[in-house]
Amino acid sequence: MELDRNGLEVLDHSESLRLLATARLGRIGISINALPMVLPVNFCCDGRQILVRTGAGAKLDAATSDAVVAFEVDEVTPESRSGWSVVVRGVARELTDPDEVAAARRLPLERWISGTDDRIVAISLDLVSGRRIVPRSHEAP
Amino acid sequence: MELDRNGLEVLDHSESLRLLATARLGRIGISINALPMVLPVNFCCDGRQILVRTGAGAKLDAATSDAVVAFEVDEVTPESRSGWSVVVRGVARELTDPDEVAAARRLPLERWISGTDDRIVAISLDLVSGRRIVPRSHEAP
Repeated sequence: MELDRNGLEVLDHSESLRLLATARLGRIGISINALPMVLPVNFCCDGRQILVRTGAGAKLDAATSDAVVAFEVDEVTPESRSGWSVVVRGVARELTDPDEVAAARRLPLERWISGTDDRIVAISLDLVSGRRIVPRSHEAP
Repeated sequence: MELDRNGLEVLDHSESLRLLATARLGRIGISINALPMVLPVNFCCDGRQILVRTGAGAKLDAATSDAVVAFEVDEVTPESRSGWSVVVRGVARELTDPDEVAAARRLPLERWISGTDDRIVAISLDLVSGRRIVPRSHEAP
């Protein structure tokens, strides 16, 4: 088991993608006027990219400027101090090709909010990393 | 009820702080080499600032350079499409004053990981915003 300098297990690429696919809610990290922002989003991963439905706003602005964004999912149980997190960093772009939009709309990607705008942002899986909290009993002495 | 352009309820400052205090796990959004990064952290809020225990790494680097960071907490239930999120933006700094460190160590701020480094980062509550998903039955026609 590979550990990072904070004693967290380093997950490999395939395990990180597997865990990513189990989540429905993620948090997108973007820059707004050079300041970091984090927003919760429901999402779907089609194996090649992360897809997010959104209305007008910061997420769409990031996508239409081809910004690099961070996308994080986790499952952490404070009571047992157990869990994992996966972070993707990639370029956000708005889907505009009608075939791409139609394919994305067939995915189980629900729209939770009621604004009139309904756009789809794709995030490429350029950098994928994952960590898991190591149970205390597995710690090195 | 004030709604934003995506149909989410805008929470006021005091409600946002109340919800923030109910969470134990948050996600910190920082910049690393000008790229956004999001990391899960357990935290404690003493009413004036958010406190995070950390080892060496990106969070501590952000703090020691007095960077502006984003800190997000949420409670979202995908099944019922209900939930809320609160985002704080403020300056991160490492606590170094012995009295401040001692006071922070008396808070219920557990250390989950096993690295040898154990530092405390404080994030000021400069900008606090919150949103709640509006149940469908409350939507405007």
